Amino acid sequence: MSQLLRVQNFTVSLDGFGAGEGQSLERPFGHADPAELVSWAFPTASWPNRTDGGGTRGLDDYFTRDFHNNIGAEIMGAHKFSPHRGPWKDLDWQGWWGEEPPFHTPVFVMTHHLRPSFTLSDTTFHFTDADPASVLEAAKQAAQGKDVRLGGGATVIREFLEADLVDTLHVAVAPVELGSGARLWKSPEELTDRFNLEVVPSPSGVTHHLFWKK
Amino acid sequence: MSQLLRVQNFTVSLDGFGAGEGQSLERPFGHADPAELVSWAFPTASWPNRTDGGGTRGLDDYFTRDFHNNIGAEIMGAHKFSPHRGPWKDLDWQGWWGEEPPFHTPVFVMTHHLRPSFTLSDTTFHFTDADPASVLEAAKQAAQGKDVRLGGGATVIREFLEADLVDTLHVAVAPVELGSGARLWKSPEELTDRFNLEVVPSPSGVTHHLFWKK
Repeated sequence: MSQLLRVQNFTVSLDGFGAGEGQSLERPFGHADPAELVSWAFPTASWPNRTDGGGTRGLDDYFTRDFHNNIGAEIMGAHKFSPHRGPWKDLDWQGWWGEEPPFHTPVFVMTHHLRPSFTLSDTTFHFTDADPASVLEAAKQAAQGKDVRLGGGATVIREFLEADLVDTLHVAVAPVELGSGARLWKSPEELTDRFNLEVVPSPSGVTHHLFWKK
Repeated sequence: MSQLLRVQNFTVSLDGFGAGEGQSLERPFGHADPAELVSWAFPTASWPNRTDGGGTRGLDDYFTRDFHNNIGAEIMGAHKFSPHRGPWKDLDWQGWWGEEPPFHTPVFVMTHHLRPSFTLSDTTFHFTDADPASVLEAAKQAAQGKDVRLGGGATVIREFLEADLVDTLHVAVAPVELGSGARLWKSPEELTDRFNLEVVPSPSGVTHHLFWKK
C-alpha cells in the first residue's frame, strides 16, 4: 500500500477557523479558547497527553486512538511550532510540548526561518523552506513506509490541498464560532469535488468530517 | 496503561445473533449469509483481507483500521477456528484463513479437544481448555504489554462478559434478522449496567455500538 498524507484530529469552529487571531506564547490558539475548541479530545482515553490511564473509549476515542496508527512522520506549519514571527533571536524555543513531545517521529516544520534540527526524546524537528511537494517527499522518506500526518495549522493544510497532495482528512467541527482567525474553509463542501465525505455527529457535540480522495 | 481485553468488529443481526445455525465447512456462519452480515466491513480500505490498496476511508474504516492497533494476542472460540465438533480425527485442519491468517499474533483457541500448537506465517495457534480468567492471563502474557482481542463467537464473548473480564466492546449491528443462531444478546441494554454505551449509526447501514467499562 502506498504512503498516505493524512490530516487527523484537526478541529475547526463552525465558521471554519482552526485558530483565532493574535497567537502568543500565552495563547497558542489566539483569541480562540483551546479548552472550548478541542474539548472533544481531552476526555478520551487515547488523548496523547493523558497519563492517568482513564478516559472515555467511545467514538471520539477512535479518532484520538488513530493519531499514531501507522504514522511515520509529521509535517507542521511554523505557527504550530512556535508563536515567534520573523528570524529566530535565539534557539531556546523548542516547541510547546516540553521534553516529551507527543509525536515520537521526525517532524518537518515549514518555515522561512531555518535553524538546525534538534531532538527531544524520540521526536526530531527539522526545519525546511521547501515547497509542499518536496517537503512531503522528504517526510515520506523519513517515515520509512508509514503514512505522514499533516498536523496543521489551517494555512499549511490549505497549501497542501491546493497542491492536491492530501489523501485523507479528519476534521472535527466544534460547536463554537470564532468570527476570524486562520481559516480552513468556508464550508466542507469546498472539498467534495475531489473527496468523498462522511459526516458523523459525536455525542460530545463535535461533528467529525471524514474525507478521502475520489 | 494496563492491558485491555477488547471485542472489535464483532457483527450481530438486529435480533442479536453473531452467526446462524448449522455451521459447516461450506457455511462458516451457518444459515447466516456473511456477505450480508459483515458487508459493512468488506469495502473499507483496512479490511484485513484487502490486497488491492483501494477501499473506503470513512467511519467504518476507523473500526477495521483499529483491528491490529495495539493488539498483541487473540482469544477465540472453537467454532471460530473450525466447523468440526468433537475430538479431532486428524490435524489437517488449520483454520479458515489459509497460509496467511490475518491475526499476526499468538491466538488462543478455547476448546475441549486439545491439540499441539502450530504456526502459519506469523500467527501461532494455541489450544486450551482452561477457564476464561486463565486463558486471559496466558494471552496477556503472550501479548507482551499490548491489548488482547476477544475474537468471538458470541458464546465465548458471553462467557467472558459473565466473568466480567471484558474492558471494551465494539459491536456492529447489521440491518438483517436471523431468527436463530449463536446469540450475543437480546438487547444491547443488557450491558449498560456495567458499561458506558455510545450508539453511532454508519452511512453503510450498520449501527456501531461502543461499550467501555464504567
